[in-house]
Amino acid sequence: MASLCAPENHSPVADAELMRQAVQGWGSDEKTIVNIIGRRNAVQRKLIRGAYEEIYQEDLVKRLESELSGDFEKAVYRWILDPADRNAVLANVAVTQSATDYRVIVELSCTHSSQELLAVKRAYQARYKHSLEEHLAAHTSGDLRKACNCTVRNIFYPHFLMTIEERLTFLKALFLLQLLVALVGIYRYDGNEIDAHLANSEANVLHNAIEEKVLNHDEIIRIVSTRSKAQLMATFNCYKDDYGTSITKHLVDDPPNQYLAAIRTAIRCINDPKKYYAKILRNALNKPVIEEDTLTRVIVTRAEKDLEDINELFYKRNSVSLDHAVSKDTRGNYKAFLLTLLGKEDLLM
Amino acid sequence: MASLCAPENHSPVADAELMRQAVQGWGSDEKTIVNIIGRRNAVQRKLIRGAYEEIYQEDLVKRLESELSGDFEKAVYRWILDPADRNAVLANVAVTQSATDYRVIVELSCTHSSQELLAVKRAYQARYKHSLEEHLAAHTSGDLRKACNCTVRNIFYPHFLMTIEERLTFLKALFLLQLLVALVGIYRYDGNEIDAHLANSEANVLHNAIEEKVLNHDEIIRIVSTRSKAQLMATFNCYKDDYGTSITKHLVDDPPNQYLAAIRTAIRCINDPKKYYAKILRNALNKPVIEEDTLTRVIVTRAEKDLEDINELFYKRNSVSLDHAVSKDTRGNYKAFLLTLLGKEDLLM
Repeated sequence: MASLCAPENHSPVADAELMRQAVQGWGSDEKTIVNIIGRRNAVQRKLIRGAYEEIYQEDLVKRLESELSGDFEKAVYRWILDPADRNAVLANVAVTQSATDYRVIVELSCTHSSQELLAVKRAYQARYKHSLEEHLAAHTSGDLRKACNCTVRNIFYPHFLMTIEERLTFLKALFLLQLLVALVGIYRYDGNEIDAHLANSEANVLHNAIEEKVLNHDEIIRIVSTRSKAQLMATFNCYKDDYGTSITKHLVDDPPNQYLAAIRTAIRCINDPKKYYAKILRNALNKPVIEEDTLTRVIVTRAEKDLEDINELFYKRNSVSLDHAVSKDTRGNYKAFLLTLLGKEDLLM
Repeated sequence: MASLCAPENHSPVADAELMRQAVQGWGSDEKTIVNIIGRRNAVQRKLIRGAYEEIYQEDLVKRLESELSGDFEKAVYRWILDPADRNAVLANVAVTQSATDYRVIVELSCTHSSQELLAVKRAYQARYKHSLEEHLAAHTSGDLRKACNCTVRNIFYPHFLMTIEERLTFLKALFLLQLLVALVGIYRYDGNEIDAHLANSEANVLHNAIEEKVLNHDEIIRIVSTRSKAQLMATFNCYKDDYGTSITKHLVDDPPNQYLAAIRTAIRCINDPKKYYAKILRNALNKPVIEEDTLTRVIVTRAEKDLEDINELFYKRNSVSLDHAVSKDTRGNYKAFLLTLLGKEDLLM
């Protein structure tokens, strides 16, 4: 269930006029901005942007960007966009920053349907005049690229071989790149058919690959990135039945590495996206300095979808509700905006 | 220009009735089948299939499959399907046969727009209840899979290292798999914008990678599989300007290998699909035993698109027209059908 409280009736023109008043003159009226934008669904926000542009010959999104600042501005900017366009922006930030944030890419590709992922890829192309796949491959951080090359070189010049630890690092970087490219590239089959025999045999393949440690992860990447979600859930269930524990528990970091974290994230996103989001919200809020980017991303992308359910799971696991945790750890307009999206603006009283 | 001659007016019901007469009783009337099916465009064929099913409660495609045989049956079956569905069938045959036919996969992903490729992937899922990417990855022939594993193992156990030749074979198999998966996965940007600076620098990257022989093909695969076609054509032109010859001439087989052939095919399909098709038709017809599968595939998939132009290029290069070459090297109903699709049934007189 969504957490957003949007009125059934609203006047895009009246909203646009109120927004104009809020952004005009010295300083801006953040309370009005939160009250309007934070209480409108995607269709309504689009109508407001359209009405605003028509009346004032100005792009509301750009105006808000220039008027607001900090985490509040980031949250408002991400929220006001169409969902596919917003995800395109999030993916672009993740891909072009100095170290690719694999979590955003994995979430994008594993919690959306094929149709939704396609809409994001189209929005990405409309916005950036390049494909997401292209940017993912081209912006791959120098380290990863170097790792791939070194891996290949090592086959030919064994005397260049480095220590086992260095080689492991290279290989994991290579696998991480393979995984991200495969996840974003796939137009996954969305059907519900399950092949029980295949689930059983691939649970076995996965187990053998994990037992061999990092030596044979091509099969893990192939299965996780190409099988349908229904089939994968059956496979992960077989794994649990046959080996007594979940596959993510077996994919432990020893020592911690991004590739294994990414594959665990993919499996969690496919298996139970709500539980996954509850978990990363918990992690983001439990840090000494909270991770605003993660907090914003999850609340903004899920408020219209299932944030109420995520809140419930969050409460079950943490004995404190998400809105209370947010209320405790954030402040100012940013706090007001997040609580409004959570449908809990009464906490502001 | 298309080669197909389809009448503007036709009655789907009358066509369906004639088809019924043609397939009923002992033996079938192939001449009528060729005359009707071979002279109807995709929309018209669909209407005939619909009318036939409604009147006779029978699937015309299945009936034709059971009545006809050999290359003629194969050609009629491929032709009668909707273009996206037909490409799904071609891709499935290519992927599931003992050794994946890389040419079909490369053609599919490099001669179609992103939108067309997506339609094929959707048709594939509707027909086979799995994604094309899934089958491509899962049916990858044992050799390729083994190659990937061995490559990885070699990094860890250098004492297992085999001869340089064996290692090269492994690496090429790995690159072929990477290339096919990347080409099928990409939702390529279709825009016409060109970044001249990037074209120049990536022509350089490609040249350096080729100079290093097989040691650094990740970059080649990344560029060819992710950049927009307009951008790639600019890059290939820079390459020619800077290094005096086309990139495909530099990507020579020494010794012959499937990976280099696949990357050359991709570059040709992107650069000039018509010229590419004229070339493979020439190769298919110039064999001691002609390659019917290739001949059928190209004629059936291009008859409604640009087969007339391909025929022109074919004539320029071979001093004999495609229809005369087909007329000389094929026989019977198969010959009559291909010539009809070529719009040259007068050669049958």
